Amino acid sequence: MSFIDVPEGSDFTWDNLPYGVFSTKDNPKNRIGVAIGTKILDLSVISHLFDGPLLNDKQDVFRQTILNPFIALPRQYWAEARKTLQTLLSKDCDKLKNDQNLMEKAFVNQAEATMHLPIAIGDYTDFYSSYYHAVNCTKMFLGSEELTGNWKHLPTAYNGRSSSVVVSGTDIIRPKGQFRDSKDSPPTFGPTALLDYEFEMAFVVGGPPTQLGHPIPVAETQDHIFGMVILNDWSSRDIQLWEMAPLGPFLGKSFGTSISPWIVTMEALEPFLVPNPVQTPKPLEYLRHDDDYSYDILLETTIKPSSSTEAYKVAKTSFKHHYWTMKQQLAHHTVNGCNVNPGDLMGSGTVSGPTEGERGCMLELNWNRTVDIKLGDQKRHFLADGDEVVMKAHCENNGKRIGFGECRGTILPALP
Amino acid sequence: MSFIDVPEGSDFTWDNLPYGVFSTKDNPKNRIGVAIGTKILDLSVISHLFDGPLLNDKQDVFRQTILNPFIALPRQYWAEARKTLQTLLSKDCDKLKNDQNLMEKAFVNQAEATMHLPIAIGDYTDFYSSYYHAVNCTKMFLGSEELTGNWKHLPTAYNGRSSSVVVSGTDIIRPKGQFRDSKDSPPTFGPTALLDYEFEMAFVVGGPPTQLGHPIPVAETQDHIFGMVILNDWSSRDIQLWEMAPLGPFLGKSFGTSISPWIVTMEALEPFLVPNPVQTPKPLEYLRHDDDYSYDILLETTIKPSSSTEAYKVAKTSFKHHYWTMKQQLAHHTVNGCNVNPGDLMGSGTVSGPTEGERGCMLELNWNRTVDIKLGDQKRHFLADGDEVVMKAHCENNGKRIGFGECRGTILPALP
Repeated sequence: MSFIDVPEGSDFTWDNLPYGVFSTKDNPKNRIGVAIGTKILDLSVISHLFDGPLLNDKQDVFRQTILNPFIALPRQYWAEARKTLQTLLSKDCDKLKNDQNLMEKAFVNQAEATMHLPIAIGDYTDFYSSYYHAVNCTKMFLGSEELTGNWKHLPTAYNGRSSSVVVSGTDIIRPKGQFRDSKDSPPTFGPTALLDYEFEMAFVVGGPPTQLGHPIPVAETQDHIFGMVILNDWSSRDIQLWEMAPLGPFLGKSFGTSISPWIVTMEALEPFLVPNPVQTPKPLEYLRHDDDYSYDILLETTIKPSSSTEAYKVAKTSFKHHYWTMKQQLAHHTVNGCNVNPGDLMGSGTVSGPTEGERGCMLELNWNRTVDIKLGDQKRHFLADGDEVVMKAHCENNGKRIGFGECRGTILPALP
Repeated sequence: MSFIDVPEGSDFTWDNLPYGVFSTKDNPKNRIGVAIGTKILDLSVISHLFDGPLLNDKQDVFRQTILNPFIALPRQYWAEARKTLQTLLSKDCDKLKNDQNLMEKAFVNQAEATMHLPIAIGDYTDFYSSYYHAVNCTKMFLGSEELTGNWKHLPTAYNGRSSSVVVSGTDIIRPKGQFRDSKDSPPTFGPTALLDYEFEMAFVVGGPPTQLGHPIPVAETQDHIFGMVILNDWSSRDIQLWEMAPLGPFLGKSFGTSISPWIVTMEALEPFLVPNPVQTPKPLEYLRHDDDYSYDILLETTIKPSSSTEAYKVAKTSFKHHYWTMKQQLAHHTVNGCNVNPGDLMGSGTVSGPTEGERGCMLELNWNRTVDIKLGDQKRHFLADGDEVVMKAHCENNGKRIGFGECRGTILPALP
């Protein structure tokens, strides 16, 4: 479809066109780009080509250092931008393709670009919406399959820390903190011994800021869901366990949260919609929607020990198993009048599937330290210094493929 | 001390000089001001007078619409700003006083100003650091005085929602949400029936942003504590109770959090330092500091029913009873490497004192709905529509007084 070559198996097809923020050695200024094949189309260079009826006098949003001004525009603007980009990049359109001078400036090799956080994140919320993950945690710690009474009535969530959200590729320093070695010992201080990852997907809030006091009805939530990224909710299980009664996770999470650099739009994801999970009991009225808003996104995690050249696959599942939809999450989040802003980030919670190989974090994979996770000839319960965790996500059907690229992070030793 | 008249009992003495952001009908642009007596000194008009060695080439920070650029400067800059302001406002300095033209432009009556949020808040954290409040909650709900095992080892906290922090005077719409009428009934949806306030103090983080992975040692925390405000952590007890297992408070809090508009600096508060509470057991090394960092700030809450002309005092205590100091809070918050930014807001948690009249929220005052709170001839367990809550805070000793002004909010009925 595109005059730009898209290698077989690439995440960044003409059907995808995710947005990100990048810089290069030649031009260290952060700018907005769209991934296609192995290239990035630099929107700051072609902003004048967004000449549709809506964007014609909003072209400055493509010359910013961050995506927030663009995604703060109403949803129709996102649609026009996508249409413009698909046209400009198609074989049948000469506008960009035949302008040799522009072509030279407009494309950058992804291999030569440094990716940055694509958005300024006002608030970061983390949900807990995978039934299988919740059940696994409950089984391990309470020996029962019975979730807390509220779990099937509302999409449980907590506020995360937005300052420590970083872009894929950022190293994570092993955090120190307070924890107990056993239930009877006094707390000690030191580097976490139980460092975990959590594979999550996240959506980025878009559209104009909402007003405090005014909920987003579930039927209007799609106007405020711009797109998605992979999110690694790095977690220290010993710190978390000791601190979280009664107010929830805090320092066990806030030492770092990684996201993939490319925001895949909800429009690009549309062909991969699947029916929503059956919800029993039926949720309250304000959480009900009949349209499908579940996505068959295939998720895969690998770990590469520092001493190894190989990355070992440790889990694989699909986002389609997620119990609460993003529409329900956003309707719930705002039903009390809580306002949201473009650039707010909403994590899905760890995504686990129904089988053992589909568990979304090491805590589940090691079944509270009773099962070894094999990485070639090495074994793990939790992450060792030097381990590199890579999460990938993509959708594929009827010969169409779009993907998220990857969310990558390496554990550095604790500071002395 | 000042050539500006400061009425007897004013919070805004020459010893205080808190910073805020205001606008006026004549000039709707937000600008930075300092309160003195019944006036505001407009710093955008006198920014050229900050001619000390540090601020001389940073005068633009006083011409911004928000305090963040100023408070992002290192602590020595704050000290120079205060010294400059105290000099300019003193009887002995002619620079401002004798410049009639400048004088006319530089002062605005507080009565004619609209106050705004003084800072752009990146992240908002809420601690739970009052021993008396924690014990009261535990007694009421668990019938025991035994706090969760971690409480005396670390300053418990959770991440709050920053988007819904509003300035004093903003009305609060009664939130709707999901809750149960009793432990055996299914959840229902509607306006909260148990709407509460929580009297907290909060500190504003200052100094340059810290780097992810790099804790602030307790001995350096004062470089990152700019000043304080009153904070009303509006809480819906029925929503909170139903949602908070296992991840903590979420929608029970995020419908609104009010702060007083004037940031009182730590320098102004210094004369009101008192010894820290005795902490047993002794906290871990990273939380220890020998210097006093507790403040005798007198706190008072009144409620005015809409049908009444009178505001009724419902509680009075001092911030000096607080168990964990702000230094300990910040050292703990960052010990895992969590980064903080200038403008981050850190709530103290509800401030309660040792006696019945010193309880910091209605939940404690009504002792889980067993005691009536009297407002003249009316009674309350929780807030009714139209109720106006006013919180005041000030320090006084040896004839010196400084204060925070007030944090005010009125409950509007739930949306239809």
